[in-house]
Amino acid sequence: MKAFQDKLHSCSTRNDSLLCVGLDPEPESLPEQFSQDAAGILSFNRMVIEATSDLVCAYKPNLAFYEAMGSEGWRLLEHTLALIPSHIPTIADAKRGDVPNTARMYARALFGSLGVDSVTVSPYMGLDTLEPFLDWEGKGVWVLCRTSNSGARDLQDLPLSNDEPLYLRVLRLVLDAPAKAAKGVVVGATYPQQLEAIRSLAPEMPLLVPGAGAQGGDLASAARAASFGPVVINSSRGILYGPSGQDVADGVRTRATRLRDQINNYRPEHIGAAY
Amino acid sequence: MKAFQDKLHSCSTRNDSLLCVGLDPEPESLPEQFSQDAAGILSFNRMVIEATSDLVCAYKPNLAFYEAMGSEGWRLLEHTLALIPSHIPTIADAKRGDVPNTARMYARALFGSLGVDSVTVSPYMGLDTLEPFLDWEGKGVWVLCRTSNSGARDLQDLPLSNDEPLYLRVLRLVLDAPAKAAKGVVVGATYPQQLEAIRSLAPEMPLLVPGAGAQGGDLASAARAASFGPVVINSSRGILYGPSGQDVADGVRTRATRLRDQINNYRPEHIGAAY
Repeated sequence: MKAFQDKLHSCSTRNDSLLCVGLDPEPESLPEQFSQDAAGILSFNRMVIEATSDLVCAYKPNLAFYEAMGSEGWRLLEHTLALIPSHIPTIADAKRGDVPNTARMYARALFGSLGVDSVTVSPYMGLDTLEPFLDWEGKGVWVLCRTSNSGARDLQDLPLSNDEPLYLRVLRLVLDAPAKAAKGVVVGATYPQQLEAIRSLAPEMPLLVPGAGAQGGDLASAARAASFGPVVINSSRGILYGPSGQDVADGVRTRATRLRDQINNYRPEHIGAAY
Repeated sequence: MKAFQDKLHSCSTRNDSLLCVGLDPEPESLPEQFSQDAAGILSFNRMVIEATSDLVCAYKPNLAFYEAMGSEGWRLLEHTLALIPSHIPTIADAKRGDVPNTARMYARALFGSLGVDSVTVSPYMGLDTLEPFLDWEGKGVWVLCRTSNSGARDLQDLPLSNDEPLYLRVLRLVLDAPAKAAKGVVVGATYPQQLEAIRSLAPEMPLLVPGAGAQGGDLASAARAASFGPVVINSSRGILYGPSGQDVADGVRTRATRLRDQINNYRPEHIGAAY
């Protein structure tokens, strides 16, 4: 099995793309031809994957959207992951974080039982709660650093006694952490200034950048950061849902193509379609 | 339906107990008569609940131990919750935290689909990520403040520019947050000094105190804090597992009784069995 970072690089190159599609289905937002139940959502996810598998560098299901349907939702997540072609890396957006003995069980749940390639984790509880994830050789771990929501400033931007904001302290914690897994951080597209601060402190660190679509993030900074180290730019609602009246799969494909190309246009080193 | 804080108070009074038992089954740690699969774990959980339901103020399943078994584990969690007598409050130890639109789905998953009385959440992403939980009237929300693991000091103890440690800033965020749900914070029994700092800043705040058993926490500080506001002291491994050779249910009951009584002995206002 290919290590996570190689798999991400291959898929990103093959599809000439930094775009990750978030598989975050909301039953009440599905186009009308899909039933608002697990079967309908599975069909919807299949359609999205088929319409975009040559356009993405990764897929990122957020676990909340599956857990909201209970055990049936968790089964739906397993079925959805099975639909993703094996050369495309998966990111379980789980934002987990717990005491070491428990974190070990989460790592087993996500890397083992679900079999995803990478996960997002929360740093609030400290390094020993990240280690059980970082110990999985060949996998990827994305640590929340500066998130895309407006409340991110409540804690993440707070200056510590040495004037360093908390999110940069988190970044240094990640930089210094021993790891068998590939390490990356999450930084919202909605805060280009913080994204640039992170990139300058960690030039080669893989960045997972949510908030590019519906949340209205700044694509230019995120795309420029890809000149130095891997960047994965996620959009969920911005790709999944569009105006009704057009063919649903065509709409998904059109929106994904447009966003992928828009991102590529911002990449200084990008020389057009590489395939 | 009784609001969370009333339900907690009633059960704590009825069972004369601040003890919460963590329902965190590890297949490989089960006594030998239980099979290491979902059926075996369900029997084990039933035994634990039957052996302790008159000794606890709450039960706290940690979701990691169920997710580790995939969709079958999530179903096991649903079945386990159904075994808990309806007058005993439940705490889904989930430590979730995500952007508002996603947090709304997690709240639906836990309060709605699973139907638990309260949940633990992580504050790293800020207030707007806690609000979707705090909006659920009648439920309880426990925000991670100063956790029980040794890595907690990596970020939570860091002094901000005004010298206040991060975990006290989190506490003030929770104190100031508007809420329809009952608000509480998580503070590890392993750090009595921080527990006392939290109690002095928030005298009536409900405290969820893990780390009392296997993690070796200080029961005295946690029990004393109960003179002012609600306190729930959790033990998981310290109750669930004991030496082999004795009757398993007897062992669980003995360990739970001992810890409940030990905690009560530290309560200044405690006047012996109230029932």
